[in-house]
Amino acid sequence: MRYTEMNKEQLIAEKASLEREYAEFKEKGVNLTMARGIPAPEQLDLSINMLLHCLDGDCKSKSGMDCRSYGVLDGIPEAKELFMDMLHVGPDEVIVGGNSSLQMMYDTIIRALQLGVLGSEKPWCKYDKIKFLCPVPGYDRHFAMCEQLGIEMINIEYKSDGPDMDEVERLVASDESIKGIWCVPMYSNPTGITYSDEVVRRFANLKPAAKDFRIFWDNAYCVHHLSSHHDHLLNIIEECRKAGNPDMVFEFSSTSKISFPGGGLAVICASKDNIDFIKKQMAIQTIGFDKLNQLRHAKYFKNFEGIEEHMRFHAAIIRPKFEVVLYMLEKELMPLGIGKWTRPNGGYFISFNGMDGTAKRIVQLAKEGGVALTDAGATFPYGKDPHDSNIRIAPTYPSVSDLRQAMELFCICAKLATAEKLLG
Amino acid sequence: MRYTEMNKEQLIAEKASLEREYAEFKEKGVNLTMARGIPAPEQLDLSINMLLHCLDGDCKSKSGMDCRSYGVLDGIPEAKELFMDMLHVGPDEVIVGGNSSLQMMYDTIIRALQLGVLGSEKPWCKYDKIKFLCPVPGYDRHFAMCEQLGIEMINIEYKSDGPDMDEVERLVASDESIKGIWCVPMYSNPTGITYSDEVVRRFANLKPAAKDFRIFWDNAYCVHHLSSHHDHLLNIIEECRKAGNPDMVFEFSSTSKISFPGGGLAVICASKDNIDFIKKQMAIQTIGFDKLNQLRHAKYFKNFEGIEEHMRFHAAIIRPKFEVVLYMLEKELMPLGIGKWTRPNGGYFISFNGMDGTAKRIVQLAKEGGVALTDAGATFPYGKDPHDSNIRIAPTYPSVSDLRQAMELFCICAKLATAEKLLG
Repeated sequence: MRYTEMNKEQLIAEKASLEREYAEFKEKGVNLTMARGIPAPEQLDLSINMLLHCLDGDCKSKSGMDCRSYGVLDGIPEAKELFMDMLHVGPDEVIVGGNSSLQMMYDTIIRALQLGVLGSEKPWCKYDKIKFLCPVPGYDRHFAMCEQLGIEMINIEYKSDGPDMDEVERLVASDESIKGIWCVPMYSNPTGITYSDEVVRRFANLKPAAKDFRIFWDNAYCVHHLSSHHDHLLNIIEECRKAGNPDMVFEFSSTSKISFPGGGLAVICASKDNIDFIKKQMAIQTIGFDKLNQLRHAKYFKNFEGIEEHMRFHAAIIRPKFEVVLYMLEKELMPLGIGKWTRPNGGYFISFNGMDGTAKRIVQLAKEGGVALTDAGATFPYGKDPHDSNIRIAPTYPSVSDLRQAMELFCICAKLATAEKLLG
Repeated sequence: MRYTEMNKEQLIAEKASLEREYAEFKEKGVNLTMARGIPAPEQLDLSINMLLHCLDGDCKSKSGMDCRSYGVLDGIPEAKELFMDMLHVGPDEVIVGGNSSLQMMYDTIIRALQLGVLGSEKPWCKYDKIKFLCPVPGYDRHFAMCEQLGIEMINIEYKSDGPDMDEVERLVASDESIKGIWCVPMYSNPTGITYSDEVVRRFANLKPAAKDFRIFWDNAYCVHHLSSHHDHLLNIIEECRKAGNPDMVFEFSSTSKISFPGGGLAVICASKDNIDFIKKQMAIQTIGFDKLNQLRHAKYFKNFEGIEEHMRFHAAIIRPKFEVVLYMLEKELMPLGIGKWTRPNGGYFISFNGMDGTAKRIVQLAKEGGVALTDAGATFPYGKDPHDSNIRIAPTYPSVSDLRQAMELFCICAKLATAEKLLG
């Protein structure tokens, strides 16, 4: 019976029973986390040979350059090639950077604030106010950057195939202070949505009032499929070029969830003109990134096919974990009409929407019961979920048996919070 | 006979003879560089085992953390310890970062501009104008940052034991818009000077008008001695604490010229309060730096004694190169009264001062003769050497025999440019 169909007595009885279940679970003294999108240790083992046997004393790039020394701002050719094939860009449209795509995004924005981007009339910090559009729910670390740097954020709702493009088009065309939009276009964090071809084309055809408006296209999960039945994403850089907006997008990606989180390679892709402009700015910040790690990755993966094969093994490890989460939600919550959730074909998250006004309570109950979840609200700018309903579930880190336990608790908490809410 | 003692006829004859020598040299078709402070390949070979056998499959820090995954913003404990012993700071006074201390300096300044430093009334970009003091000659990449970021630079002359402290004290006390000073306090780039204890103490006791003034202490060459007879530098962080100015200094260093340029570890040291403040800002920019490379360095060097021993081998490779340069200058130029130069006890450079108005000409002649030198003027803000006399000689990269050739040409060019200048 669905909770919303229960009368008050039934709900009170249900709540009392849930409280007993919750108390019993608590006694187990578990201590688990589904809070962040972290690969499991066995996923990291997949790449261990990269560290052990990869640089065999020959540290020369195929360009002839000694990767142990200074030089080359935009990456050694063989590292570039990995990403060129992954993201379908040319050699002049990519910079292979350091260990963090987040850092590349931050640096891109802080440079825009201080110096401007290609085509800026003035640095962004010279405006009284600038704004970014933020499809929600989204990635907390994107929003944290805007908040720190004083960039006002405007929420954009998600449709089934991407952000609400009517709203995006209307806002960017009418408000010159809107300088950017955050997108995780494939297996979006946390919704799992991949933007449809129509959405990508509408992005490429935006007519922003701000001439130096940029799409921040964080393609973090571009090869992170859960099975061979997977989503496809149009190439935004190509679509922008076709639409006559070649410079409107900065695309980011990394191998953080391919090789090693914090020990991989990050990349920015954009039009040649954008890249030339960025390199000129960036040459003042650094002599270059770690080419030894670039060479290590290139030698280990050999080519993009090597990455694709590698991702099959990742999928083999994490697909069962997604299945456990979905099985538990379907078994425990669906019959009761509690919540909605996504069934992504890739990425690192399942997005759960509970009844309005229950997300914070669920997270609190889970925490006190021994399972850490991403803070409720974290998936929204300023940490404020207007409906207090969204929770990001990150199933990759725990083992299957830990995950089963964690989801048992999650479902108890979701039920209890819903019953409490309905009883008012 | 010194050139300044020659009469016109003698000078004309000398010049004609030099032009023949120069033309003969040119015919050899050499192509060498003494332009940048780059370790020679044999120096890089010293650390090759770090890449080959260091991570033996165990990627755990002694803190228990898996270095293959996310986490730890300020560095793993064993990497911190290397730098704590190198720079005499505590565990709360250091952040071990990525591959580039230059990038840490740039990021520190751009954050100061956008967000301010500890104690700032407002971000530096909110002032009409801010200024940095620049001891000259100095490091071109420091000056390039200020130029790009719109920070006005004021030249400060060098004395024999460091910058002109009377001038530094006077300026920082009287001008609130002066927010920083660039220092390379040990084996300074390019002068080779190490600041005396008195100079360091006067730095620590500055009374800046700007409450958020910072000393940017780029201690790049702190262990880069050329022999066991070496310079000593007072610990600026300790001296600032003693002087009641604990937060006035940011110290930077790296292993770029210990392990691998562009593949090493960079570090920022400062008071705990500064570090806490920086970490809070930095946590928005990145999840963390490459801990695998930190672990690699910690396992390879083991401790600071390991670094000290390693530096003896570096010295064994580069000391003879410094000797070749100095021998050639003494043999060829000293009897003619041409130029002055430093005899550093460490670092990567010999600073040559020719007759006023000859530096550009010497660099041009050398280039056309087949030897690249650092651009004349590069060691000054805005690339402008007011005397056109300073040339930075970087002897580490070429082999001894190449260096001998390069210095032959350098001396011919210095003589020729001086003769030309004297003839007017």
